[in-house]
Amino acid sequence: MADEQPTQIPTAQDPVAEGGEEKGPSKNELKKRAKEAEKAKKAAEKAAKQAELDAQKAAADVDYATEFYGKEPLNQSQSRLRRTRVQIASLNPNRDGETVLLRARVQTSRAQGNKMVFLNLRQRIDSVQALLTVTPEKVSKQMVKWTASLQDESIVLVEGVVKKSPEIIKSATVGDVELHIIQIHLIAGLEARLPFTVEDATRAETEIESTAEVQYKRVLLDTRLNNRVVDLRTITNQAVFKLQHGISSLFRQYLESQGFIEIHSPKLQGAATESGASVFKVSYFKGTAFLAQSPQLAKQMAIAADFERVYEIGPVFRAEDSNTHRHLTEFIGLDLEMAIEEHYHEVMELLDTLFKHIFTGLKAQYKQETEAVNRQYPADEFKWLEETLRLTFKEAVDLLVADGVDRSELFDINTENEKRLGRLVKAKYDTDYFIIDKFPMELRPFYTMPDPEDPTVSNSYDFFMRGEEILSGAQRIHDPILLAEKMKSKGVEPESMSFYLDAFKLGCPPHGGGGIGLERVLMLFLKLNNIRRASLFPRDPKRLEP
Amino acid sequence: MADEQPTQIPTAQDPVAEGGEEKGPSKNELKKRAKEAEKAKKAAEKAAKQAELDAQKAAADVDYATEFYGKEPLNQSQSRLRRTRVQIASLNPNRDGETVLLRARVQTSRAQGNKMVFLNLRQRIDSVQALLTVTPEKVSKQMVKWTASLQDESIVLVEGVVKKSPEIIKSATVGDVELHIIQIHLIAGLEARLPFTVEDATRAETEIESTAEVQYKRVLLDTRLNNRVVDLRTITNQAVFKLQHGISSLFRQYLESQGFIEIHSPKLQGAATESGASVFKVSYFKGTAFLAQSPQLAKQMAIAADFERVYEIGPVFRAEDSNTHRHLTEFIGLDLEMAIEEHYHEVMELLDTLFKHIFTGLKAQYKQETEAVNRQYPADEFKWLEETLRLTFKEAVDLLVADGVDRSELFDINTENEKRLGRLVKAKYDTDYFIIDKFPMELRPFYTMPDPEDPTVSNSYDFFMRGEEILSGAQRIHDPILLAEKMKSKGVEPESMSFYLDAFKLGCPPHGGGGIGLERVLMLFLKLNNIRRASLFPRDPKRLEP
Repeated sequence: MADEQPTQIPTAQDPVAEGGEEKGPSKNELKKRAKEAEKAKKAAEKAAKQAELDAQKAAADVDYATEFYGKEPLNQSQSRLRRTRVQIASLNPNRDGETVLLRARVQTSRAQGNKMVFLNLRQRIDSVQALLTVTPEKVSKQMVKWTASLQDESIVLVEGVVKKSPEIIKSATVGDVELHIIQIHLIAGLEARLPFTVEDATRAETEIESTAEVQYKRVLLDTRLNNRVVDLRTITNQAVFKLQHGISSLFRQYLESQGFIEIHSPKLQGAATESGASVFKVSYFKGTAFLAQSPQLAKQMAIAADFERVYEIGPVFRAEDSNTHRHLTEFIGLDLEMAIEEHYHEVMELLDTLFKHIFTGLKAQYKQETEAVNRQYPADEFKWLEETLRLTFKEAVDLLVADGVDRSELFDINTENEKRLGRLVKAKYDTDYFIIDKFPMELRPFYTMPDPEDPTVSNSYDFFMRGEEILSGAQRIHDPILLAEKMKSKGVEPESMSFYLDAFKLGCPPHGGGGIGLERVLMLFLKLNNIRRASLFPRDPKRLEP
Repeated sequence: MADEQPTQIPTAQDPVAEGGEEKGPSKNELKKRAKEAEKAKKAAEKAAKQAELDAQKAAADVDYATEFYGKEPLNQSQSRLRRTRVQIASLNPNRDGETVLLRARVQTSRAQGNKMVFLNLRQRIDSVQALLTVTPEKVSKQMVKWTASLQDESIVLVEGVVKKSPEIIKSATVGDVELHIIQIHLIAGLEARLPFTVEDATRAETEIESTAEVQYKRVLLDTRLNNRVVDLRTITNQAVFKLQHGISSLFRQYLESQGFIEIHSPKLQGAATESGASVFKVSYFKGTAFLAQSPQLAKQMAIAADFERVYEIGPVFRAEDSNTHRHLTEFIGLDLEMAIEEHYHEVMELLDTLFKHIFTGLKAQYKQETEAVNRQYPADEFKWLEETLRLTFKEAVDLLVADGVDRSELFDINTENEKRLGRLVKAKYDTDYFIIDKFPMELRPFYTMPDPEDPTVSNSYDFFMRGEEILSGAQRIHDPILLAEKMKSKGVEPESMSFYLDAFKLGCPPHGGGGIGLERVLMLFLKLNNIRRASLFPRDPKRLEP
């Protein structure tokens, strides 16, 4: 359009000057000429107007904002300007008017006409609304168009002015301010189609079901796990894994205050530990190794080696072909073992205090994260008693029998009856957390110490959350003669574990401990309903990737 | 002796009475009789004295102390008296006269005649001298004899009175008090011969070499590792593993203050990561899995999943048949990864500050432990500079060339040259800690970001302690197109790692990180000279037990 030239138009004066020297034209001729002149004048006026418009338009199409937006070159650490970047979480109405710089994901963008675009910018568990409006000399239409075309999940560097928002923006976690964009650059875009949007992946099942008007996309667990990197970006998952960190952090904090030290025991073992059936085999140079099913043997050996109180946080491997909501082939064990002075209830009580420390800590320090998870996975608040409920195995069985379960099927308490017991206990005692003590000897591994009076009963316990086992522990046999005897009676050849047995032959104090499944505690505290949601990159018999 | 009856002796009166009525005896006869009477009298006196002694002795042999010593029945948690037990470390002259109860190992016992025995009692890194002396009604000879016969490394429960010791007892770490034993019971004895004494295992090599008079037993590393449970009981090893705990604790503390969260990535992988040659294969149900050689891929994926700053402490597996002083097949990796804003030096500098935090923390909080280790493994104090020395790879090479190394062999810096460089740097800059930046691209893995100006150089660094590498790190490639290209150029088929590549296709911020070998840092800080000493139960190509 700018290249188009206005048409050449004769002016009204020229014919008059011409006619002054030649013979006068006829009346008709004059009339015709006047008409033509009038027409030409109008055309000229129109053309001039058009020219003006075209000039205006040409001026408008010059992109005066090219430096304020666009794709950044690949960051190879070319320069270091040391410009301060802020966190979305730090924005608030007190910073009204302040210009800030931040890197964030574009969760969604929404254009309003061609002059305005709204972005939802996200960082971990926080989000804020940002907007870009055409402004002379500052924000061009091209800039708005480019911004509106950004793919969801692009990573951008945004410079903007914090503005107090006139009303709370519900679609953002930081809803009392918005960001008026001055500059926006693309740091990293996408080279593939998103398998699902983060918004869809964050939606609660209840919301999907309750809304009849809109047909929301449901993102299934398997799709999520196949595309775990995107799934993990939801505010829900960012919060889940902050809470996972919280659990092990509180675990450590309490144990260190009680004189425990952290150990790291080898996962590669020369012999299959505990039970040969569910152990993974490893090719080890020209021989075979096995993956540790728990740090049980090593932590007991650490006690025989005088460490007195030890804990370990590490992977535990189970080659069990269990495809359930609560089994993984690799999970994180929070294990501890300690010398006892008089009675194994010293350990059991320490574990109990530890759990209450964790629950209290999560409640006090991770309120925002818990609420974020609850928005997607609604859950009644986790409850526990000041004085923890302790049942003996026998008492637990009696409760179930009184509720109608046939005693003959209660040799052991299976998963279904565990949950039933959880409901019974919740109804009767209003707690989601309790202990069962004194399990039958037959249900426990060979290293469990028998009760001093009744050899069919053992000095062992399980801890429960919302009706599911989250810890198993016991006093262990520290006497090598009794230990070898129990090994034999459970079909374990003492010779095959001589390095372990030797530790006790060289003197070991009475001791006990327990092992906690980190993902189970996380799943049950938050009621995530499937343990895979509590593992960063879960492993089960059918899943080894991503 | 007590059963022996005194001989029946006729009294002197009888012969006189007899002789009064019968014929008088001859003079000789009288003389003889007088002599016999004298003899009998002496014998009677002797017998009476003996009887008295025997009675005394019999009285002394009644063991009045049976309740004060002996073997305890096996602790099966029969009772819980809740008696307070103390730590040796808490004993001091201010507690003079106080009766205390404690459980400890008998490190050594030394009888003095049959009335006194000295014990060296040990708890973790502390020891105290205890003594038991025959005392009427309290400590019997039998009690002393029993105590003296306790095997080294027995675990005893001792009640005793704290006494300020007249002079410092050098053989104990708590040398200003001793414990006067009132009661001593055996909690756990030994059912096997000790492979070596803890005293022998604690002796410094320098002491063994410098003492010509005494032939000390040298306990070799392999013997120690075969009997690791006893070896770990030395005060030295108790201190080594407290320091190991210290390193990871300080690592965590610093990173958490910088907004990092702890993650747990799976060790079981569907594909061989990084390099197929040195990866352990695992039988995984009907298929095959691989053990992660590092959390590299997972932690980068966590960055693509928006966790921003993550760390992991976990086992790392290397199927390398390297039988050196510094290689293990399983070790603990202290890994971190973070998004960067402008330049990879942000990560490098954070890692540097982290290390200085660890060094400062160890020095301030683990002085006693460091000294304990130094007694067995003498080491010059670890030194670092306020402003860490940074060399480029090129500068490091130049230093070596200037010292006489042939430049043609410096394509890479091998172990020998690393150590040489460490000595050169120590001599020139007086530091045991420094950084080499900008490694040649060819020496680094495919995911390393090239320098923006010189593609033969990379944005990568190694950190060194006492001339050995303890950390390797870099800026990573976050662009999927460049990443795929680099994979191919290093012979890695992008398709084989699609789950990893996909993470970058869906948008990932610029990032970098590093991996630290926990055992290496521990070994080099303490100058233990062999990495096996820095691992609780070390694993190498030839060792899978204990």
